[in-house]
Order: sequence, then structure tokens, then C-alpha cells
Amino acid sequence: MHAATFLYEEVAQDLVTLIEAGSLRSGDRVPSVRLLSRERGVSVSTVLQAYRTLEDRGWVEARPQSGFYVRARPARNVPEPFPSRPAPTAGRVPSGDLILEVVEGAAANVPVPLGAGAVSPALLPGAALSRELGRVARSASPVHLAYAPPQGVPELRVEIARRAALWGGTLAPDDLIVTAGCMEALALSLLTLTRPGDAVAVESPAFFAVLRLLQALGLRAVEIPTRPDTGICLDALAEALDRTPVAACLLTPSFHNPLGATVPDDDRARLVALLAARGVPLIEDDIYGDLHHGPQRPRPCKAFDGDGLVLYCSSFSKTLAPGLRVGFVAPGRFLADVLRQKVATNVTGPAITQLALARYLARGGYEHHLRRLRTALATNLGRLHAAVAEHFPEGTRLTRPEGGFLLWAELPEGCDAVALYRAARAEGITSVPGPAFSATGGYPRGLRLNAGHPWSDAIERGVARLGELARAQRLATATA
Amino acid sequence: MHAATFLYEEVAQDLVTLIEAGSLRSGDRVPSVRLLSRERGVSVSTVLQAYRTLEDRGWVEARPQSGFYVRARPARNVPEPFPSRPAPTAGRVPSGDLILEVVEGAAANVPVPLGAGAVSPALLPGAALSRELGRVARSASPVHLAYAPPQGVPELRVEIARRAALWGGTLAPDDLIVTAGCMEALALSLLTLTRPGDAVAVESPAFFAVLRLLQALGLRAVEIPTRPDTGICLDALAEALDRTPVAACLLTPSFHNPLGATVPDDDRARLVALLAARGVPLIEDDIYGDLHHGPQRPRPCKAFDGDGLVLYCSSFSKTLAPGLRVGFVAPGRFLADVLRQKVATNVTGPAITQLALARYLARGGYEHHLRRLRTALATNLGRLHAAVAEHFPEGTRLTRPEGGFLLWAELPEGCDAVALYRAARAEGITSVPGPAFSATGGYPRGLRLNAGHPWSDAIERGVARLGELARAQRLATATA
Repeated sequence: MHAATFLYEEVAQDLVTLIEAGSLRSGDRVPSVRLLSRERGVSVSTVLQAYRTLEDRGWVEARPQSGFYVRARPARNVPEPFPSRPAPTAGRVPSGDLILEVVEGAAANVPVPLGAGAVSPALLPGAALSRELGRVARSASPVHLAYAPPQGVPELRVEIARRAALWGGTLAPDDLIVTAGCMEALALSLLTLTRPGDAVAVESPAFFAVLRLLQALGLRAVEIPTRPDTGICLDALAEALDRTPVAACLLTPSFHNPLGATVPDDDRARLVALLAARGVPLIEDDIYGDLHHGPQRPRPCKAFDGDGLVLYCSSFSKTLAPGLRVGFVAPGRFLADVLRQKVATNVTGPAITQLALARYLARGGYEHHLRRLRTALATNLGRLHAAVAEHFPEGTRLTRPEGGFLLWAELPEGCDAVALYRAARAEGITSVPGPAFSATGGYPRGLRLNAGHPWSDAIERGVARLGELARAQRLATATA
Repeated sequence: MHAATFLYEEVAQDLVTLIEAGSLRSGDRVPSVRLLSRERGVSVSTVLQAYRTLEDRGWVEARPQSGFYVRARPARNVPEPFPSRPAPTAGRVPSGDLILEVVEGAAANVPVPLGAGAVSPALLPGAALSRELGRVARSASPVHLAYAPPQGVPELRVEIARRAALWGGTLAPDDLIVTAGCMEALALSLLTLTRPGDAVAVESPAFFAVLRLLQALGLRAVEIPTRPDTGICLDALAEALDRTPVAACLLTPSFHNPLGATVPDDDRARLVALLAARGVPLIEDDIYGDLHHGPQRPRPCKAFDGDGLVLYCSSFSKTLAPGLRVGFVAPGRFLADVLRQKVATNVTGPAITQLALARYLARGGYEHHLRRLRTALATNLGRLHAAVAEHFPEGTRLTRPEGGFLLWAELPEGCDAVALYRAARAEGITSVPGPAFSATGGYPRGLRLNAGHPWSDAIERGVARLGELARAQRLATATA
């Protein structure tokens, strides 16, 4: 390494020290290149190199015509939650009045929307999508009013298959079935693989909509211990499978909801092999996969699947528009069976949304949009993390997701997430309390918060108020 | 009755005689009012009264600025099929490779499309619907990209509820759940009411998509004897219910597919009471209800339902556009459960199609469109009936539907509908052979023909060719 390298590294390291010490806070503009060059007595290009390096490492972000700003980063001093330890028995999922209450509450239009796992329309390319919808509606041949093929319109399947190359996958358009969002992909997969009474292995905590789906189909959930960083514990999964026969495994290996956990690549190969050895199909929910904050997209388990046992499910609901209801499944060896379920239950999806989406994807702006969206969500999530770290009571634990836009907090002893959710809800602040993510009433102190909205004073105040309410709960318990 | 009444009745009767004798054929223009007035030496108003009477009775139709034309009417000399006598045991529905083959074949774009139960786009208001889709896409607030409420957008439910008044029903917008076509309405209803292994009572023959749905959900079909004129035999149904417990009854009381049968009003009250007495829910498929050829819309069973046991299902796939995938269910007392299934399996439907449809319906042209569509379909069906009566071998039996656009033929001994279907399919003529409508391989000589397309020489020739192929089958069998 020659001297110049040391020099810009040194400049960069000093900036990191300032940021870590809190002297420069997220959102602050860092000193201009010219100013720092003068102050440090180094060349402009050295400072620029330092800033580019910090940008690559995620410390600062460049804003066109404006300079470099400190990026929101997870505060370092809040510990992560412990790995989960759900009950080892497979239980029938209760009908979930809490889930219903929470989901309805979460979806409501409120001043501080930390509930629903949704991305703000402000971050989505609504105008471009509307334009394509309008163009399809105006097209001379009204194919958009006729039945689409049951697998979905070919133009869209071509675009989806093409994108598999981004994670080293090889999907052909005919490997895919277009669905009504990711949920229908999961539902058709479960209808294909299971019968009521069957057990399905899921992470714990598990996305409440997955639990609700298991409940609706009369299935039992086998909740597997899961780490907030690396996701499902493979040893625990193997043990559970040897104890309880399951009809399928339904997992979200990338940026799990609610944990944000991501299974490392090596573990994915092991996971797929472990299931294949037992003949257990894996329903892989990859809806957050494209929302990595780092430079690399996680490779789906589907990429490690040599046996056609992975049913790969995703959608455009988190990256383009939830209301289009366009998702897809690549069901591997179960293609014909899943297609039969699709045709039997609703024939085919609507044509106009599929055609418009195909046109939007073919036009080529999607990758560009995704890059901006990832940065925005990483920034929001960092801000949310910092705000919770600041305002929530001591003893709170927080996940550090490397993708997506969901944060999972575990409140300290004395807090009650459901009561907290209800009290905050009454003040226009939504969230989703932990028990919604468990079939067995677990996570009484868990709280999922959504960072899909651009940061605002209202949100900052909402998080502070949530923290205040949580502190009050603790105090009340302590003095009781 | 005074003399004038006799006079116009006399004129009218003479016209009927000419039509029945074949001197005036369907599509022919009847003598102009002025000409007939001169020829018969009666007043213009008497002739006009005679023609109006014939119009009311369905013999002729007025065409604006053009005069009166003979309407297509079922030929009188072809007998109807006998009531069905399916096997009395409830059988698991086979996976139906024939159904798949036939459905794929039926949906293909062929010169003579008598297969798929579809209305020609030429008869549907595609331009008006596309206009509304475009308007929604261009609207300032992109609600069409956000999640619609799980029950469906309120504007659409208001319009659907309003239409219930047309059959004397009282539906509130909140009684309805918007679905992906009528099939999803049926699927959600079955998912709510049944568990795999349960038995469901259906008409026999039964719509193949209903059988496919029962198969996909692991249900058994109890096939009930059904008459080609008045539909399901209530005595047989009562007997079957007392013999085999069923989880639900899934029927199409109006213009049944494939029979075209319609349960008389009196029988509907009895049907609903019979099921209520046994606590059996009725899933009512009313997708053809608005396509009555006579002046009166049949009242759905839902109108006779005092216990909330009727789950009323329909859609706009046959009257506006199949590719919109918009249907609905009014699930009565099962509303919350059906909604839970909807949310669990795909959250909600897409917003743009619902919003556009709501706007189209609110605009007020739907009734006008329906009147024209009914006339067109009645004409097509009459032509198809006449052509089959002319070209098919002696001994063929034919239904006389009073609504919809489907004709059911029973070929004479010696014919084989599946072989006929395949031979004709190879020549670009589609149809659906009888065994597709039975869970137990029944109806080897049944054939469903679609009259949803405007009559053409190609279709006339196709029917003639079908008849030729059927005759050849008979001859081959006779000489074998």
C-alpha cells in the first residue's frame, strides 16, 4: 500500500469516528470536499476518494448537486434479540381475533403508519405504472378483456424469467405461474402440498398472514427456532422434522418478516439438502429478496435446488404496487399440480395488470427504480433503528436487518406489546404486536415496526411516543 | 272480447302458422305493416298490434328503422333429453385428464368455436370498458395501485348491491365480497363450508369447472338427477340428502351449464326450505341469471333465503368481459368466514378492474347492453338449435334453454361424443363432450355447444360437419 492509500483511509476513518461518536448524525451533511481538503492539507482528490470509500461502505451517501450526507445506520449499542425458542409441538393455528384486529388496525390510514408492512406510494413508480395501464387499456386489440392464459400472459413470464439470471437462476417462462400476489403463490403451493391436519414448518416468529393462511387451510404450524441474524436454525429444523412429519416447509430466507433475518449462502445449500434428503418440499417466500441494502442480492434457495422441490414464490407488491396483485410461483416439479389448483380456484388472473407490468419491466427502468428504493429503505430503516434505540426503554433489543423495511423490537420485562399497540393505536400510531407472529401466543413483548415510509417529524415523534408509552408500562409494572 | 281483438289475434296466428311451416324462417323480414294492412284489408294499427303481440311472445323482433324480423326459435320437432339418472353414490372426482384436454381444446382459437362457454367479444362493450380502465389509470390519485379493501372497493359493491333490486333482493354493499370471477366465489364458499372428503351435491350433468374444483379440494360429488327443463329434481335431492350427509349443495338454478335448465319459482322456495330444514348451505351459481331470453329475470334462490344459508355467487365474465376477473359472493351468514378465506388466500383483488367496472356500472348503460346481448344470444341459440336439428342424426335430443347461450345435445345410440369431439377438433371445430360433465364417466353421448358467437356461415358449416361426423359414427356402428 502506498502513502496515498493510507492518507484517504485515514481521512475516512476520522469521519467514521465522528459518526460513531455522534458528532455527525444521520442526515447531517459532511464537510464539503473543498473545506476538508483545506483543513486537512490533503488534495481534493484524496478527500473525494475517502468519501467514495465511505459511500461504498454505507457510511455516507452522495446527493446530486448537494454533497455527501451521513447515512442512517443501525445504532451499535442496542443488542439483537435472542434466538427464538418456540414450543416444540405442532399446534393447530387459532383463528386469531388478535391477528384480525391488528391487521385491520395496521392497514388503517393513520398519522404514524408503523403497522402495515407496506412501502409508501411516494417511493414507488406509480406514474410509470399508471401510464402502462393506460396504454394497455387503449390498445387496439382488447386482449386485456379476454381470458389470460392460466399460467399468466407470456410477456410477463418472459420478464420474470429473465430476472432470475440476476441471482444465477435459470427459470424459463413456462416454469412460472402468475398469481394474485405472493399470498396466492403460497396458498396454491399449500393447497397442492397439504391436506387439512397436516403440519407445516415455519420460522418463529412467523409472518401473521402465513399463520392466517395455515389456519384457513386447517393446517398445523411447527414453529422452528430462528435467529434474528441468520434466520432459521437448521439443527432445530432437522430435529423437528425427525420428530414431526411435515407436509412442507414454508420459509422466508431473505429479510424475513418480521425479523429481517437472512440465511447465509452456505446454510441455504445445507437447508435445501436437508429437506431434499427427507423429501420435504420448501415453499420459499422471497418477496423481500430484491430489497437488499448491501450490494449483493441473496441467492434464493431455489438456486440450490436440484430436485425441483423448491416452490419459489414472490411478487411485485413490495417493489412496485401492492394493488396490482401480481405475484408468481415457480413450483418446480409441482408445476402441473399448482396450475391445476390455480385453474380450479379462479381460472386465471386479470390480463390488464399483467400486460401493464410486462410492459413496464420490458421498458427497462425497474433496476434503476430498485436501486433508489433500496437506498431509501435502508435510510428509513436506519433512522427507525436509531429512533427506537434512542426513545425506547433500556433493555429493548432490536434487529439489524440487511434488507427489507421491517424492524423487530423486543421490549424489556414489564412491557406488554398488545397493550402498547392498543394504546398507541388510539393516538394514531400503528404497529404490530408480537403475539400476531406466533401460533402459540408467543412474543408478548415483540413489536414489528414498518420503515416503508419516508422519514418525517411525525414518525420521529410517533416513535418517541411509543417509547414513552413503553417506559410508562415498565414503570407501572415496577411500582405495582 | 270484441271484434278488434279477434282480428289482430287472427293476423298474428296466421304469421305463426307461416313461421311454424317454415315459410318464414328465422332472420327473415316479415311483410311490412303497410303491405300486410293492404293485403289483409285491416288497419295499419291492427297489423302493428299483431306484430307487437308476436314480439311479446318472442316470435318476432323489431329492428329500429327496419321493421320486424322472425326471431330464431328452437325447432319444435326435436325432443328434449330425458332427465338424468346419475349413480346414486358419492364418488371422489377423478383428476380428469379428459377435462383438461377438453378445456384446453375448447379454449383454443379455432374457426368454429363451439367449445368454450364464452361470449364473443363482438357482443361485449369492450370499448366502453377500456375507456373506464384508461380513466382510472389516469386518475390523479393512484388508488388503483394501492390495496383495495379485502371485501372489494365500496363503489363496486354499491353498484352490485343496487342490481339486486332487479330480482327483488335486498343486498347491502357490506353483504358482498368481490372475487376473481364466479369461480373464486365458488372456491371460497367451498373452502369455507367443506373439508376434504366431504360430499357436495351437484346437478348431473355438472359444469366441468365445478367438478374440477371439487377434485382440487378433495371433495366428493353427489350427482343429483336433473331435468333438462326444470333443473334439479327436488325429490331426488331430498332422498340423496337423507341417504348421504353433504356439507353443501352447489347448484346453478338459472340457465344451468350445460343443460340450460331453469328451476321454476315455486320449486326454488321448496328447494331453499328443503335445504334449510336439513341445515345444508346452498352455493348458488347465478352467473347466467341476467341472460334470460324471456322478459322476466328468474329470481335467485337467494331471494327465498330467510336463514342466510344461501351463498349467492355470480360475475361479469359472461356479460361484460371474462378477462376482468371480477365476480362476487353474498355469503349470507358465512360472510366473516368467506372473507377470512379471501384474505388468507390472496389478501384482496386488484383495484383497477374493480374501479373501472364500478364506473361503467354507475354510468348506466349496462341494462341497455344486457337487453341487446340477450336478444343476440337468444337469436344465436335459436339458430344453433335449428342447425343442430337439421344436421344431426335422427334420434338426437336437444335442450330448449330459456336463457344463456349453451345448448346440450344427446346423440343417438351408436355415437360417441369424445370421439366426435376429437375428430371435429382436428378440423377446427370445438365442442365439449358429455363425460366432461360427470364425475362418474356419464353422458358418453352428450355434447355441449356454445352459441356465444354471432351466427356465421362458418359456424353453420361447422355444425353441419359435426352432424356429418355423428352420422358417420352411427353408420359405422350399425354396420360393424
